[in-house]
Amino acid sequence: MPPNTSPLISAKALAGFSELIIALAALRAGLHDIVKASIAGSIIGNVLLVLGGAMLAGGMRYQEQHFNPIAARSQATMLLLAAIALILPAVFQTAANGTGGLDRLSVAISIVLLLVYLLSLAFALVTHRALFAGSHQPDEQKGQPSKGRAIAVLAGATVGIAWMSEILVGTIEPATQELGLSQIFVGVFVVAVLGNAVEHATAILVAMKGRMDLSLSIAIGSSVQIALFVAPVLVLASLVLGPTPMDLAFPAGLVLLVLVSVLITTQVANDGRSDWLEGVQLLTIYAILGLTFFFLPANVATSH
Amino acid sequence: MPPNTSPLISAKALAGFSELIIALAALRAGLHDIVKASIAGSIIGNVLLVLGGAMLAGGMRYQEQHFNPIAARSQATMLLLAAIALILPAVFQTAANGTGGLDRLSVAISIVLLLVYLLSLAFALVTHRALFAGSHQPDEQKGQPSKGRAIAVLAGATVGIAWMSEILVGTIEPATQELGLSQIFVGVFVVAVLGNAVEHATAILVAMKGRMDLSLSIAIGSSVQIALFVAPVLVLASLVLGPTPMDLAFPAGLVLLVLVSVLITTQVANDGRSDWLEGVQLLTIYAILGLTFFFLPANVATSH
Amino acid sequence: MPPNTSPLISAKALAGFSELIIALAALRAGLHDIVKASIAGSIIGNVLLVLGGAMLAGGMRYQEQHFNPIAARSQATMLLLAAIALILPAVFQTAANGTGGLDRLSVAISIVLLLVYLLSLAFALVTHRALFAGSHQPDEQKGQPSKGRAIAVLAGATVGIAWMSEILVGTIEPATQELGLSQIFVGVFVVAVLGNAVEHATAILVAMKGRMDLSLSIAIGSSVQIALFVAPVLVLASLVLGPTPMDLAFPAGLVLLVLVSVLITTQVANDGRSDWLEGVQLLTIYAILGLTFFFLPANVATSH
Repeated sequence: MPPNTSPLISAKALAGFSELIIALAALRAGLHDIVKASIAGSIIGNVLLVLGGAMLAGGMRYQEQHFNPIAARSQATMLLLAAIALILPAVFQTAANGTGGLDRLSVAISIVLLLVYLLSLAFALVTHRALFAGSHQPDEQKGQPSKGRAIAVLAGATVGIAWMSEILVGTIEPATQELGLSQIFVGVFVVAVLGNAVEHATAILVAMKGRMDLSLSIAIGSSVQIALFVAPVLVLASLVLGPTPMDLAFPAGLVLLVLVSVLITTQVANDGRSDWLEGVQLLTIYAILGLTFFFLPANVATSH
Repeated sequence: MPPNTSPLISAKALAGFSELIIALAALRAGLHDIVKASIAGSIIGNVLLVLGGAMLAGGMRYQEQHFNPIAARSQATMLLLAAIALILPAVFQTAANGTGGLDRLSVAISIVLLLVYLLSLAFALVTHRALFAGSHQPDEQKGQPSKGRAIAVLAGATVGIAWMSEILVGTIEPATQELGLSQIFVGVFVVAVLGNAVEHATAILVAMKGRMDLSLSIAIGSSVQIALFVAPVLVLASLVLGPTPMDLAFPAGLVLLVLVSVLITTQVANDGRSDWLEGVQLLTIYAILGLTFFFLPANVATSH
Repeated sequence: MPPNTSPLISAKALAGFSELIIALAALRAGLHDIVKASIAGSIIGNVLLVLGGAMLAGGMRYQEQHFNPIAARSQATMLLLAAIALILPAVFQTAANGTGGLDRLSVAISIVLLLVYLLSLAFALVTHRALFAGSHQPDEQKGQPSKGRAIAVLAGATVGIAWMSEILVGTIEPATQELGLSQIFVGVFVVAVLGNAVEHATAILVAMKGRMDLSLSIAIGSSVQIALFVAPVLVLASLVLGPTPMDLAFPAGLVLLVLVSVLITTQVANDGRSDWLEGVQLLTIYAILGLTFFFLPANVATSH
């Protein structure tokens, strides 16, 4: 394995890890709304804030950046699949109207998603690994991204996250009440942003080194990992660990949030190139989503 | 006409034919819900199950298969058009709230769809037929797909379908009640799958021969044919044949089903290439949709 | 600046201008429903009727027309961004359920949209202007589109519009009641069509000259301008001019209208080529949308 793929491996492993730690703590405390908000927030944070920031930062240095369109489309399709998998339990809940079956459906869909995730790993690491090798590296001659610097950034971010997640879960409820913010706003736009700090730093770092391939892989790959690995694992873990089983039915607002984020990401990622305006477009959607949830009264945001 | 386009012609003609036979029988029996479920099921079955199966089967033999992206996009756009045409009467019904006009709207949209279908035939067979000629045929040298074998498969499937459709319509209601399944689940995932057996066999057969062009054309083409030809004809036929006129307002669940299927198909078909993971992605959406409708209580699934 | 880009500049400037004049008159009269219907109608009219007409007219003369796919995708992404920005206040209104905050959210989103619009101008006119230069000009040798003829068409259309907008706003209410049409139908499909007469004439004229680049830029560019410039300016202007502030929450029917139009436009524009069938597909969606709103009873169409 070439040495400069290490930031990718590290960032993605940490992404799932830090997200899981925060979510498991909230799950044991029975805060299902916070867990779901944090899952949705991580999905959209990675594709809008992280990828948007990387495309903007990279685009300020390069007129145009390129990445493998086949790999990007494949990951974007996986993201669309994940969004659809999160829409259906919510629709089921509305249609079934409390007649039961939601927990069994959530478990069944979680198992399907975990299988697809394993197959996607087989695709990326075994049968089609050449697609993800990252052939567009304009700065290659000017020097590899410093491995030491990358590790330092990652280590710093990890320590910060572990420390913050401890504090966060304990202080979410009093803090949101004090500030008058809805739990859902905090979960989506505060907890998730902190949980994605590593990806954010890494993705921007490599984008500015001209390696948009890697940046895109971190950002979309992390979202896919949250949706197809972290979310199903939490549903299954809740059967054992949680006070009550957690289902996959997200509140309608979160479903919409994920869906629009995936639509714009698909549009931006499909063509194999990026520029600063694409970064601005992703960040704008993030800002508008943030504003909408910020103005939402605390009591209505969490309803289904 | 080259001899090896015959499976395409036969499969597509049979697709519309067997679908129409089953649906007309149900229409005369006044089973509008079953007819609509079967239409929606055929649309999604062709693009998710048939195309997904073909991409998976073909992808297990070829690292990557190619097809004409312009023809594929054109058909995917037609599919999106069809999905939008099915959304609007449902939305109209909710908005108009029983104040009338739905039947006239359904007839008007049906006429528009039939006109577009005729124009799309003119496009594919007259003005732009070169697009649909199928230039990517890696196995051409190793031998044509056997015409005799193709015809045998088709003939067998047709006899089976004619026989089953007789039995099916008569036994749907007692069977669903006995098994506790919702009519909509049976219509979408049982009737439609049987009705598409021919396309399924043909599409997988040609995909394994390396002719993904043909496979895609059968799968998406059949869905387009159901949406733009079979559905409008049934609406117009119900004015004469049926006990009551059938409208184009599909239940919300079916509209959602069609919409998500079309979104993922568009994403997969637009790029002019396929691999086994794309097959898995389409089949996964089919499985998740099936699970959702399977767990839905029989009494709520058919409500609007 | 080459002389033959003048129709583009004139058409786009006039588009914003005539739209603003009509809308400001309606805004001062407190007809917020008409203003919103006219905004939605202009957005969909430009991408479905104007672009569809141009692709059909151009496609009847050329087998296939090409345009810069990067510029087209960039504008299509902006259109998708605009559609999402119009969905969210409507969803907010439903979720917040009258608990306030909608006016502040509308102002905040309007300011964000105006900033993005300015950045998109910087992108198109400064940092990436080469993308929008229009390299595909098959008819260039046969002669420039006549500047005199273009100006005559534009001048004629402008005079017509100014005259009609005077009459329109005064006669909308009595006319709709007399004809039994809903205000929303009139706003979307009558007022907006007249307001886009200039773009329509120009876009078809240049498409028939083989310059689909310019045609697409006028059509999608005008829609983007309405959504990211005219709509936010009207929201901000209503704080000063209007009897009451206008919010950005469009009725659900209009939101759906814009969303489906943007989805099909994105699908058609992304690939960098057009043919007559793509024109037919866009026009068909326009016709189906028109039929749906035409049959809607006058009293329900404007509800949220």
